[in-house]
Amino acid sequence: MEKIIIKTYEEPELKDPIFVGGLPGIGNVGKITADYFIDKLKMKKIADIYSEYLPPQVFINNSIVHLVRDSLYYKKTGKKNDLIFLAGDFQGTTQEGQYELSYKTLELLKKYNVSKIYTLGGYSIGKIVEKPKVLGAVSDIKIIKTLEKAGVEFSDGEPNGGIVGSAGLLLGLGKELFNIDGACLMGETSGYFADPKGAREIINALTKILKIRINLKDIDEKTKQLEEITEKMKQETQNKTSKEDLNYFG
Amino acid sequence: MEKIIIKTYEEPELKDPIFVGGLPGIGNVGKITADYFIDKLKMKKIADIYSEYLPPQVFINNSIVHLVRDSLYYKKTGKKNDLIFLAGDFQGTTQEGQYELSYKTLELLKKYNVSKIYTLGGYSIGKIVEKPKVLGAVSDIKIIKTLEKAGVEFSDGEPNGGIVGSAGLLLGLGKELFNIDGACLMGETSGYFADPKGAREIINALTKILKIRINLKDIDEKTKQLEEITEKMKQETQNKTSKEDLNYFG
Amino acid sequence: MEKIIIKTYEEPELKDPIFVGGLPGIGNVGKITADYFIDKLKMKKIADIYSEYLPPQVFINNSIVHLVRDSLYYKKTGKKNDLIFLAGDFQGTTQEGQYELSYKTLELLKKYNVSKIYTLGGYSIGKIVEKPKVLGAVSDIKIIKTLEKAGVEFSDGEPNGGIVGSAGLLLGLGKELFNIDGACLMGETSGYFADPKGAREIINALTKILKIRINLKDIDEKTKQLEEITEKMKQETQNKTSKEDLNYFG
Amino acid sequence: MEKIIIKTYEEPELKDPIFVGGLPGIGNVGKITADYFIDKLKMKKIADIYSEYLPPQVFINNSIVHLVRDSLYYKKTGKKNDLIFLAGDFQGTTQEGQYELSYKTLELLKKYNVSKIYTLGGYSIGKIVEKPKVLGAVSDIKIIKTLEKAGVEFSDGEPNGGIVGSAGLLLGLGKELFNIDGACLMGETSGYFADPKGAREIINALTKILKIRINLKDIDEKTKQLEEITEKMKQETQNKTSKEDLNYFG
Repeated sequence: MEKIIIKTYEEPELKDPIFVGGLPGIGNVGKITADYFIDKLKMKKIADIYSEYLPPQVFINNSIVHLVRDSLYYKKTGKKNDLIFLAGDFQGTTQEGQYELSYKTLELLKKYNVSKIYTLGGYSIGKIVEKPKVLGAVSDIKIIKTLEKAGVEFSDGEPNGGIVGSAGLLLGLGKELFNIDGACLMGETSGYFADPKGAREIINALTKILKIRINLKDIDEKTKQLEEITEKMKQETQNKTSKEDLNYFG
Repeated sequence: MEKIIIKTYEEPELKDPIFVGGLPGIGNVGKITADYFIDKLKMKKIADIYSEYLPPQVFINNSIVHLVRDSLYYKKTGKKNDLIFLAGDFQGTTQEGQYELSYKTLELLKKYNVSKIYTLGGYSIGKIVEKPKVLGAVSDIKIIKTLEKAGVEFSDGEPNGGIVGSAGLLLGLGKELFNIDGACLMGETSGYFADPKGAREIINALTKILKIRINLKDIDEKTKQLEEITEKMKQETQNKTSKEDLNYFG
Repeated sequence: MEKIIIKTYEEPELKDPIFVGGLPGIGNVGKITADYFIDKLKMKKIADIYSEYLPPQVFINNSIVHLVRDSLYYKKTGKKNDLIFLAGDFQGTTQEGQYELSYKTLELLKKYNVSKIYTLGGYSIGKIVEKPKVLGAVSDIKIIKTLEKAGVEFSDGEPNGGIVGSAGLLLGLGKELFNIDGACLMGETSGYFADPKGAREIINALTKILKIRINLKDIDEKTKQLEEITEKMKQETQNKTSKEDLNYFG
Repeated sequence: MEKIIIKTYEEPELKDPIFVGGLPGIGNVGKITADYFIDKLKMKKIADIYSEYLPPQVFINNSIVHLVRDSLYYKKTGKKNDLIFLAGDFQGTTQEGQYELSYKTLELLKKYNVSKIYTLGGYSIGKIVEKPKVLGAVSDIKIIKTLEKAGVEFSDGEPNGGIVGSAGLLLGLGKELFNIDGACLMGETSGYFADPKGAREIINALTKILKIRINLKDIDEKTKQLEEITEKMKQETQNKTSKEDLNYFG
């Protein structure tokens, strides 16, 4: 079989499309963000991407099997730039798979004349934060100003290990081999669980960058639920600790 | 060498064949079931599948080496549907191998105009059960009714990790890339050892689905032997525990 | 680069050659045996085999680097069968590498009309034995008698895990895909270190099978040295244990 | 995508060029050395080498992403031999990658008629040494004399595990498949951290071998800084130990 198989459903004509890629990763921040846009903007599917670089696995939804895949979606905005989104079940599981899947995606984006790439990811800081920042990294210095206006912060030397995986490669290969500029938006996250809080901030920044209005109610609700759960856990831990302290001296 | 080498012995003309795949896996439930049908129905071999996706190994039977392989068998039933079975020594040992072997098998099935795929597997529940259930998952919702009539149960959200390996991929790739529908039958098993009990229930369900009569005596006997062994183990554990309890208070 | 690169030095015309393969493995029994024949019979080199399936490494002998490789040698015996030997630094390090290297070797052997394959290996029994046996496994039942005459033993169900690696694959692929019969000779070994004792017994059996006279003095000496060392170690362990026993009661 | 992608910036005409390869490795001795020459001699870039054999990663410098790569540089010396240097972010991360990247590099060097290969590496001795030696290994015995004049030492049987990775393969494949001779220079290093001391000695030897003058001030300074740090650490450890000793008896 071909190592990557693209099943195309539609080949829309798009106007100066901007690309946004959000696959599973740290705190699932990128995936939550991309899925949210696809859902809220009722995007249509361009193609499913099956590959032996993804796990040999089917998921089961209501007794129906679903072969794991990544998918490309589009949205005609009626404005200056249409949109193409990448979302899915997994990143490539091997180094080779990471490169091949990113390269194949970029070939497709080139065909659609994409001129700007935004990749989404989480930036693990190992603790729960009140108000996660959105950090940026760019492949062309000219993009920084646009992003700063949308509230993205640029902190020298962060993240200091660079960006690993799809969010990094789409930018790096895009720049070096496809001549497409772009940026990575990284939402701060504890990294402990699928984190809507970090995603919420990226969604917010992305609406400004893409000049798209989107209803934030659902993500706000999820964030609130998460906050209540973590608040509760915190109190329980404190209660427990207090009691243990009492026991200790009791 | 080619990564998968198919050594064909016969190319039978088959009437609307149904495919059943049972390779080694959890509790070896799928393999035991497939081997049982192949033996009891005296199936004939279509082909041996050798591959560098299988371990670099020969088994030894009576001092004769046997290169590890998977094999395809057929049975002319004289009824509405002939049968093709897949059984063998191993599943592909890598992610790439899983995809490639399943894809190559599906190419072959397409050639035989297979219109329905059943894959067999174990569903590990971590304890020994009196009466294992057979759980189902389908790639087309229309198949559910047929399976329920044969006693297969559909439990929403189970197995919740999806299906990994050959039993999942043959269904998933079959559906998405070859347009062949199918279902996976999973026999409950403790998962601790090669488990004829889980296989026994799948064999029973499969005879109804395939409308094939098969002698269940041998598998019943194996199941009984296993039950006697586990019963004995249970009693020994209890005896031992009782004595230890006595010692403890003695 | 090609995944396997064969650098050919000579293409001798050989009379009904028999092939013997002895690569590093358990107790290095196969390698010691093959190297001993190559040295004692002053064999000439047919080819070096370089490959990315071997470690990315050079050895250093007297400050000169030596790229790791396997090599094929030949010997014109002047009798019924000439000889081709395979020896070298490593087996393929991956499953794919094991298959590809064995397959490529078999292609070469086919070209030389090899009609019989003997592979050599160690059979680990986890303890030091006085007189190691040579166990056999064959790909054609007719070979058993010849080997029994040479002192090779056939013990049903041993080794029960089959034969892993080059010694198994050359036989298995040779039989199934190249129509060449053969046998594997396994020298019993503790498996703890490079073991000339197990090799010594294979060398002895092999001289009978190949009808070749060879001077056993050097391997006998190595075996004796090893015996002296292990005897000394045994005594030291005993002395130490005795003293410790005295101390314990002292 | 092609597994190795070479982005060429310039194809200079070079006079009998000598090649020097210094990629990351033990103590980063090879990389520090190569980077130092490239910087001090203001070398120009021939090509960037991107590959799926390198990690799927971008680094971030001043908020700008940098796709990981290795690079080839050249220097027209105006003397007998021009220079080509290889430096970069990573060695190939897999066995296959190591072979493929070295082979591709050698193909390029062949095009430039390179007749001598020097590879650089660290030789881990597990402790900090006052004055690291530079050890040599060659692919042609005639090179030894030249190197000894430059202070390179040849110690029989060292390093006894051979040379693993790029520094070994460029030599080994160069010799066996491209007919280019060469040597590996290994600077002694503790191996605990990026070690300018070991690099300093290789730089010194290399200036003699290549008959190139180079300013050693910066590397001397780095070496001095490192010595001050390790001296300080040593004293602190001693102080701490003394105090602990006092405490112990206190």
